[in-house]
Amino acid sequence: MLWYKENNSGTAQSTRIRLARNIRNTPFPQKLDDNEKRELTEKIKNAVMNGNSALAKNFSYIGMNEISENEKLILCEKHLISREMAASRNGGVITDKDENISIMIMEEDHIRIQIIKSGLCLDEAYGIADKVDDVINESLGYAYDEEFGYLTSCPTNTGTGMRASVMLHLPALVMTGRIDSIINSANQLGITVRGLYGEGSKGAGALYQFSNRVTLGAGETEICGKLGSIVNQIIDKEKAAREYIGKEMPNSLDDVVWRSYGILKYARSISSDEAKKLLSDVKLGIDMGIINVSGINTAELSVITEPGFIMSSAGNISPAERDRKRSEIIREALNK
Amino acid sequence: MLWYKENNSGTAQSTRIRLARNIRNTPFPQKLDDNEKRELTEKIKNAVMNGNSALAKNFSYIGMNEISENEKLILCEKHLISREMAASRNGGVITDKDENISIMIMEEDHIRIQIIKSGLCLDEAYGIADKVDDVINESLGYAYDEEFGYLTSCPTNTGTGMRASVMLHLPALVMTGRIDSIINSANQLGITVRGLYGEGSKGAGALYQFSNRVTLGAGETEICGKLGSIVNQIIDKEKAAREYIGKEMPNSLDDVVWRSYGILKYARSISSDEAKKLLSDVKLGIDMGIINVSGINTAELSVITEPGFIMSSAGNISPAERDRKRSEIIREALNK
Repeated sequence: MLWYKENNSGTAQSTRIRLARNIRNTPFPQKLDDNEKRELTEKIKNAVMNGNSALAKNFSYIGMNEISENEKLILCEKHLISREMAASRNGGVITDKDENISIMIMEEDHIRIQIIKSGLCLDEAYGIADKVDDVINESLGYAYDEEFGYLTSCPTNTGTGMRASVMLHLPALVMTGRIDSIINSANQLGITVRGLYGEGSKGAGALYQFSNRVTLGAGETEICGKLGSIVNQIIDKEKAAREYIGKEMPNSLDDVVWRSYGILKYARSISSDEAKKLLSDVKLGIDMGIINVSGINTAELSVITEPGFIMSSAGNISPAERDRKRSEIIREALNK
Repeated sequence: MLWYKENNSGTAQSTRIRLARNIRNTPFPQKLDDNEKRELTEKIKNAVMNGNSALAKNFSYIGMNEISENEKLILCEKHLISREMAASRNGGVITDKDENISIMIMEEDHIRIQIIKSGLCLDEAYGIADKVDDVINESLGYAYDEEFGYLTSCPTNTGTGMRASVMLHLPALVMTGRIDSIINSANQLGITVRGLYGEGSKGAGALYQFSNRVTLGAGETEICGKLGSIVNQIIDKEKAAREYIGKEMPNSLDDVVWRSYGILKYARSISSDEAKKLLSDVKLGIDMGIINVSGINTAELSVITEPGFIMSSAGNISPAERDRKRSEIIREALNK
């Protein structure tokens, strides 16, 4: 199931594993011209798509030169490709039916295997990534050094080539002003904290991505174990912060939650950032039992009201028109 | 019917006529000691209550020393007595069953006759005031000078002793920022503009009271005619401003209206000022046909969620508790 379709009541919205890989004896993408990129993309695509593994039959390929800018935007909004990949006309992405697996070809590295799933499931996600990794390695052969591990275009990824990350919903830590000290502590423990859309993006809707900074000098299981342990500590801190605000400021808390619900239910224009903030409040209210509304998947509503999704049905409309359309989609979902 | 019980869809929320009167050959209230005030109050009360006019049988008297502070507050919130009267333990007020008529005894003047009715009805209200005035004059005899007219405690009321006022709901003039120039023009034409609770109060909920400044040198009908004509011009300007915002910014307008409705419907805590603002938006939406909700009387909701009204049923609770109770009363009304 698509990660955001699962109605997940936890603090961990999603888990992602990304492996950076390059083909043996082949220059990194930035050293290739467009023709060479095209040939190598074709080679990798065929190797993955035509592999005789059980996985391959669920795969489909989308070339970055085959789709519109808006279709690329939607792939970004689903977190299936990076913004860098979307900006390129080279390479492409292979995804499985459920869109839990995405294999970017010719991004910063020749191959980037990504697993994204709902909730906190580092070991499970790594298990899938590892299987996909083995299948591709068998047919193509990776650039690997006994001393350094997997060789990557950017040295920060060398070693395991793995970035494990968990997206956490931390509204109570934001409300109590404790989020900054949490981020600082995580940084000191070798954890990078980013906003919803990766590097440079802000924590819209109280969503923060926690990932390992170092890819070298530790095994994949060890990295996942360490990240998982820190993430669980932060989840506990969020839980404690919710207990605190539930006890110390129950009145202002339920007012915040219900106002956000009321605005989502009746507003005629909502920006993407405001929608995330309001949906975050409502999710907090649902998770804390303040508000009893069934069938509202705030993660899904947040994704399907992103600009690309909206324009895929409403056409190439202005930001103001998107804000109106967004409010309409949310109203319909809430009035179901 | 009580002025705020009538569900009035116009720009003019209510009309008020007030006549300041004093008994012949008797010092003004501020020159009387408590005993003299008590005796004179009794005399006036008996004359009015026991008069053999048709009006008298609907009258009842409330002495300021007979009721609690909260009951006085409610009379203020209904606009039946002034804040000055509420602060006093002398005198009292006679009201009729419908609370359209209130006769304050021993406020700044011996007698202040007030008529308050829903909508714009200066002539009708003056007609009633005039009748009440005649009845009282017959039995008590007013201080009246051939040259100066009715003599009053404060010289600014001398002459007709009449203050005619209309409470206008001017949200579109507020939104377009034109309200200040309207107030300036009105001032230049001899019209005093005040907020919801008279002198010194602000225009909460886009409500502004327009009244004649001068009571001398013109007859009652002339004063009412002039005020009515200016008020009608302002109503036309409000109408034009509504047409403008309806045409030029329809999207942000319906968003404002529906958001306010959503907050009123779901918030768990609303201050008195915010309630007035939100109810003003909703009334604008109803009057402009943006929002189709029947049976919501915003003027009534605004009055019955004032502190005195809330405390009359919920007891002597804190401002924060009143804000919660206010939101509850509004939610119930909107979910009917």
